[in-house]
Amino acid sequence: MSGSWPVSGWADRRVLITGGAGFLGSNLAHALAERGARLTLIDSFEPDGGANAANLAGLPDSVRLVRGDLRTLEGLERLLGETEFLFNLAGLTSHKGSMEEPFRDLSVNTTAQLRLAEAVRASGAKPHVVHASTRQFYGRPRYLPVDEEHPLDPPDVNGITKLAGERLWLLYGRIYGFKVAALRLTNCYGPRVRIRDGRQNFIGLWIRHLLTNAPFEIWGGAQLRDLAYAEDVVAALLAAAEHEAATGRPLNLGGCPALSLRQLAERLVAAHGGGRFEIRPFPEAQKAIDIGSYEADDRTFRAATGWRPRIDIDEGMARTLAYFRPRLAAYL
Amino acid sequence: MSGSWPVSGWADRRVLITGGAGFLGSNLAHALAERGARLTLIDSFEPDGGANAANLAGLPDSVRLVRGDLRTLEGLERLLGETEFLFNLAGLTSHKGSMEEPFRDLSVNTTAQLRLAEAVRASGAKPHVVHASTRQFYGRPRYLPVDEEHPLDPPDVNGITKLAGERLWLLYGRIYGFKVAALRLTNCYGPRVRIRDGRQNFIGLWIRHLLTNAPFEIWGGAQLRDLAYAEDVVAALLAAAEHEAATGRPLNLGGCPALSLRQLAERLVAAHGGGRFEIRPFPEAQKAIDIGSYEADDRTFRAATGWRPRIDIDEGMARTLAYFRPRLAAYL
Repeated sequence: MSGSWPVSGWADRRVLITGGAGFLGSNLAHALAERGARLTLIDSFEPDGGANAANLAGLPDSVRLVRGDLRTLEGLERLLGETEFLFNLAGLTSHKGSMEEPFRDLSVNTTAQLRLAEAVRASGAKPHVVHASTRQFYGRPRYLPVDEEHPLDPPDVNGITKLAGERLWLLYGRIYGFKVAALRLTNCYGPRVRIRDGRQNFIGLWIRHLLTNAPFEIWGGAQLRDLAYAEDVVAALLAAAEHEAATGRPLNLGGCPALSLRQLAERLVAAHGGGRFEIRPFPEAQKAIDIGSYEADDRTFRAATGWRPRIDIDEGMARTLAYFRPRLAAYL
Repeated sequence: MSGSWPVSGWADRRVLITGGAGFLGSNLAHALAERGARLTLIDSFEPDGGANAANLAGLPDSVRLVRGDLRTLEGLERLLGETEFLFNLAGLTSHKGSMEEPFRDLSVNTTAQLRLAEAVRASGAKPHVVHASTRQFYGRPRYLPVDEEHPLDPPDVNGITKLAGERLWLLYGRIYGFKVAALRLTNCYGPRVRIRDGRQNFIGLWIRHLLTNAPFEIWGGAQLRDLAYAEDVVAALLAAAEHEAATGRPLNLGGCPALSLRQLAERLVAAHGGGRFEIRPFPEAQKAIDIGSYEADDRTFRAATGWRPRIDIDEGMARTLAYFRPRLAAYL
């Protein structure tokens, strides 16, 4: 079942989201359910991943949830045969985790992605694919902001395996005739982000500490980050599916204007109305995979889609904290 | 067992060669045996790979041959614990094969490489590693000659999986403190190349046809290639192990000045003293993964090591044909 261009509206569209119970996947699911799409979510609910049953609260009963691992799940080809749009958000994202369990990282981020791409090919369905990539590929930036021509230098196993996954998708789209958008996401935050620990994002850990009245730590503090708010990222994922000009090559997706970690911490504390943090030196053991400052040049994506971020950092932080305050127990 | 810089002489050095029964691996083994190194060769003897028992004829009995697949071979860590120099030449190289069997390509070129790199890490031995990469990563060149700053755009599954393997080696070297040279080889030819079919190199197929008195085909004919002769490649692999300046980042390795496929065919026919070939249009099915012309800019490697090719194309072709003529049955 091939999607057609241009895309106008999401009502009754058959959409598959991998990693659908995770941070971005579930936010996308909520947005698409509101728009009347026919949704299937796949998620393996890895304990150290982004999936959380609480992320799915409020979705209509018509949303189909498939619990399963893309490495072993049967019936993928049939599922994809019914799919017009595939939002591919499944993956491991932990830098540290990838160095501790490199085979697992490779099997999830590359081998399972190849399996999914092969299932798309075999299904003959030619869905539009939106694949979540990462700015991690660029390594320690040689210049800011980082555009898509910046040399690639993945600083850890995770960057290597995710990059191979991105390349497999773009290759398969080109060779087998389906449209693939690959968005290299900057650090994202917002409702439904994992806050139990720092595996998904440093800011998750900050939020947890703030909401449990504990001081949080910053490593370094001067590093710049252009955080992207979940609602803006969801809008970008949809825009990527809607605009053919966004497909066929990897494109950066950034967020708010870059701020230092110290500034971000100050804004988060202000958004919460109080809290404490401590600046620590960057741990020696982590230095080899530290990438310094990052800010995306995402002008190509913006020009291709008309997308721009709508939620400023203070509003995004306030909304994020407001989401978690009444739901904290489900996320700790 | 850590190798020490600078390297002066190969006598009694403990050397491990993966893919040791293959084209470049076996040529390297002969060169190192002559220099008195203590050699262990690992090879899985895949039927469609470069390994051939005839490649090992003439090696001293002291050379240890381990038949096994890096994906499953036991005792890797122990083997590496005794290794000062690891020449890592195992891998699948077929562009077409990688599209037909993508999971196999990924498991051999990435997963098995991760297993080997993990075994190096776990062994604590910190050998010097020379890893065979490929110019395939650059895809269709945007400019010639291609230097290491050229954008990467692997045109097939093989390019993606080999690139992930290269990156894993360089990462492991950097993080875990051993020296890794990664040479992005251009098309190589010479004695012991696979000539049964075109899986390893187009010129293998040409040689087979020529030596069996059949016309060979050229697809296109205008594409440039800077063929590297096996003896020169072996010298480059040794130079990479001997010079610390060649480690830590991927470096190109080229060969003779670039000639068109038509010119190369004419030179090969002249070297043989006769023969025929036909120019055919490039097959439609292969066009999507065709990369056009290639010529390496390998000035960085030359400056780091002092290496330069010594065997010109006519001499190399004559020696290659002379190798195969009395041994043809073993290679068909």
